[in-house]
Amino acid sequence: MPGQLAGRLMHLNVFLHGCGHHGAAWRMPGSPIAELGDIRYYERLAQTAERGLFDAVFFADGQSAGDPADGPLWHLEPLTMLAAIARATERIGLVATVSSTFYEPFHAARMLASLDHISGGRVGVNVVTSMFDAEARNHGMATMPSHAERYARAAEFIFVALGLWNSWDDGALLRDRAGCYADAALVRPVLHEGSHFRVDGPLNVPRSPQGSPVLFQAGASEPGRELAARYAEGVYAVAYDLPSAQAYYRDVKRRISEAGRDPEAVAIMPGLVTYVAATEGEARAKQAAVDARLPVEASLAQLGRFVQRDCNGWELDAPVPALVPASDFTGPQGRYATILRIIETERPTVRQLLGRLAAGGGHVTMVGTPEQVADEMQRWFGQGGADGFNLMPPLLPESLEDFVKLVVPVLQRRGLFRTEYTGSTLRGHLGQAAVAAQPFFMPV
Amino acid sequence: MPGQLAGRLMHLNVFLHGCGHHGAAWRMPGSPIAELGDIRYYERLAQTAERGLFDAVFFADGQSAGDPADGPLWHLEPLTMLAAIARATERIGLVATVSSTFYEPFHAARMLASLDHISGGRVGVNVVTSMFDAEARNHGMATMPSHAERYARAAEFIFVALGLWNSWDDGALLRDRAGCYADAALVRPVLHEGSHFRVDGPLNVPRSPQGSPVLFQAGASEPGRELAARYAEGVYAVAYDLPSAQAYYRDVKRRISEAGRDPEAVAIMPGLVTYVAATEGEARAKQAAVDARLPVEASLAQLGRFVQRDCNGWELDAPVPALVPASDFTGPQGRYATILRIIETERPTVRQLLGRLAAGGGHVTMVGTPEQVADEMQRWFGQGGADGFNLMPPLLPESLEDFVKLVVPVLQRRGLFRTEYTGSTLRGHLGQAAVAAQPFFMPV
Repeated sequence: MPGQLAGRLMHLNVFLHGCGHHGAAWRMPGSPIAELGDIRYYERLAQTAERGLFDAVFFADGQSAGDPADGPLWHLEPLTMLAAIARATERIGLVATVSSTFYEPFHAARMLASLDHISGGRVGVNVVTSMFDAEARNHGMATMPSHAERYARAAEFIFVALGLWNSWDDGALLRDRAGCYADAALVRPVLHEGSHFRVDGPLNVPRSPQGSPVLFQAGASEPGRELAARYAEGVYAVAYDLPSAQAYYRDVKRRISEAGRDPEAVAIMPGLVTYVAATEGEARAKQAAVDARLPVEASLAQLGRFVQRDCNGWELDAPVPALVPASDFTGPQGRYATILRIIETERPTVRQLLGRLAAGGGHVTMVGTPEQVADEMQRWFGQGGADGFNLMPPLLPESLEDFVKLVVPVLQRRGLFRTEYTGSTLRGHLGQAAVAAQPFFMPV
Repeated sequence: MPGQLAGRLMHLNVFLHGCGHHGAAWRMPGSPIAELGDIRYYERLAQTAERGLFDAVFFADGQSAGDPADGPLWHLEPLTMLAAIARATERIGLVATVSSTFYEPFHAARMLASLDHISGGRVGVNVVTSMFDAEARNHGMATMPSHAERYARAAEFIFVALGLWNSWDDGALLRDRAGCYADAALVRPVLHEGSHFRVDGPLNVPRSPQGSPVLFQAGASEPGRELAARYAEGVYAVAYDLPSAQAYYRDVKRRISEAGRDPEAVAIMPGLVTYVAATEGEARAKQAAVDARLPVEASLAQLGRFVQRDCNGWELDAPVPALVPASDFTGPQGRYATILRIIETERPTVRQLLGRLAAGGGHVTMVGTPEQVADEMQRWFGQGGADGFNLMPPLLPESLEDFVKLVVPVLQRRGLFRTEYTGSTLRGHLGQAAVAAQPFFMPV
């Protein structure tokens, strides 16, 4: 059974986001509120994660500004930012989010291949389908396409990108100064004509160090899980407790098997918010300090976006009003299901729910000493809940620095995490073999 | 009259391209043929140009692979590459080419704004409309839209990008930890709904150091010149001799005036191929060495693309066959007009024309000692042909290094070129004032 292998190592990514994942992180004294446009801020964060031997840094992305009054909800554009970070780091993987709803596969495949060259084979991509009408309205549409339509486009998008990445064979570059630069027979068109895209190819960037960037998936919906089963080499999951992590883990690993792929080759990494200190009391005090700065109104507005209702009139110290079942909810499924589960198992007041969601929006939060946090991570890792974690530091750079300094050494002592990088590519960090060039076949 | 101002300084950009602009550059012993996927190669070239105090490095771009047997016709994707180069340099401007036919303005405006943040205000963009059906077929179309249609889209593209770059006012970021992160009243939507694009905005990147990246234009056609007149702050021109440079210069400066803008604030920079050495004989020997490696067949094929005819059967030592007049030519106008003019004034054989076009495809070539090349540049600069040049090194890195070491000091001694950077932004290098934030108005 996965999760029980001797010598199996945890995978750690870090999800970098603004001043930290906690909604009030930017309100803390000393927060990096003035550094969000400064590439050196992101470079230093990646260098910290690299000191901690993380597999990768990860950036989410969106295509609209949100309400700027809510806080610093932005970062630099991920693909340009990752090129700079690639040059400020040596080994750590670099995962960008790309929206298949708003990007064309030729642009995305080309930029990702270019980044894989720039980084020497350290690039991954989290393909998302996006969700907000405000994003659609920046890209020529009045509203988002339906969930089914978006996932159909995403599947075709990944298929075309894989075709483009494989359009130059490994041996295509002859570099014969007296003869041919390339072997034209080994540079093949893609000639794709599908429901969403026409792309002749080949790509105008030769095969990159990893052959193709590593594919991540983060969708919790049915088509999201199916896409993960078919293509993903890493999965970012949402689970607020071990039982929900195990249920998701079992389901996705089963789907990967059913898709004819090796489930052990796909790392499932739930998001993880940590507050760590020498004593549990200090760790809880760190959490309480930032929780105390949370403005109630903005938190209710955020909750309203998650559940797609107006929550402004909700009574803070009363139980959470009844929500529609997940099957009737048309927004993003994963977080909504988590909210329903928190309500079902913890019966929180509205105020308690807001606190729970303030950092990471329903991802698991672990608070305590380095040993306590490592214990809990080990429990998830050993009991079929996770192959690793996507760390979501509530406060940046502090929570990441704490984790690297305090928790990583404990995991290493227990033999659960690498003590040095053994490879130079992201796919290597994930314990996967390099991908051979493959001719492009149309799907049946 | 422009060109006669005392103390007026030349502007120098360098157009970086593969192993150099000469079609046989990659065939030379020691050519950087294996370094085209190595970001350090491009970083070193930019550092050399920065040592030479150039205003900017410039990358052209295309959306199809071409025939890889023809030579190394590729480079890394410009937007990702420029992010890395930004971090390897301090002062030099960074100009990317973006196709308005294949890009959406939200993506492009966002990445360029991000690059302007990453570089501390050094980004420019050369908006092109693209030309080849092979590019269209990578982006969902069977053939290119018409010239008129492409330029209509380009104008709307630039208009929307300017709107997005101005969607965050200078004072929008309050960064008040106890209050609001941003002043929502100073972050305004764009609400554009035009023939080609719907973009609500605002951009999800706050105002960048330069406010908006510097706009370049390179089109020689009628709508290209009109677009330059309305928007461009720098113009890349094609001229193979001084009279043709003067005619273009006069025409575009007049159009800029007629558009109500200051013609002296817009730098016109013809492409310039140079072979420089201590003696004229050595310089000519450098040119001859690379000319000798030019394969005739591939050169005829390239000529065929320029004039959109099959030239394979052409007799090498006979006069060039008659070509259709420019008014009947449906491909890119600028280079075609140059070819017609070379034929008209030099009456070359096919072989002579191929040699003329081998480096830079009809841009002026200056060969000689540093003083001879500086003389000729000064003549163009002083006689209304140029405000500077877009250097197109035939051999990389050699021709760029030669120019920086040998020609730049001569220009500096003559008071024609800066002896240090006086500003830190590209717009500053071009001698232009910073752009104030401006509210977004719909065009009448």
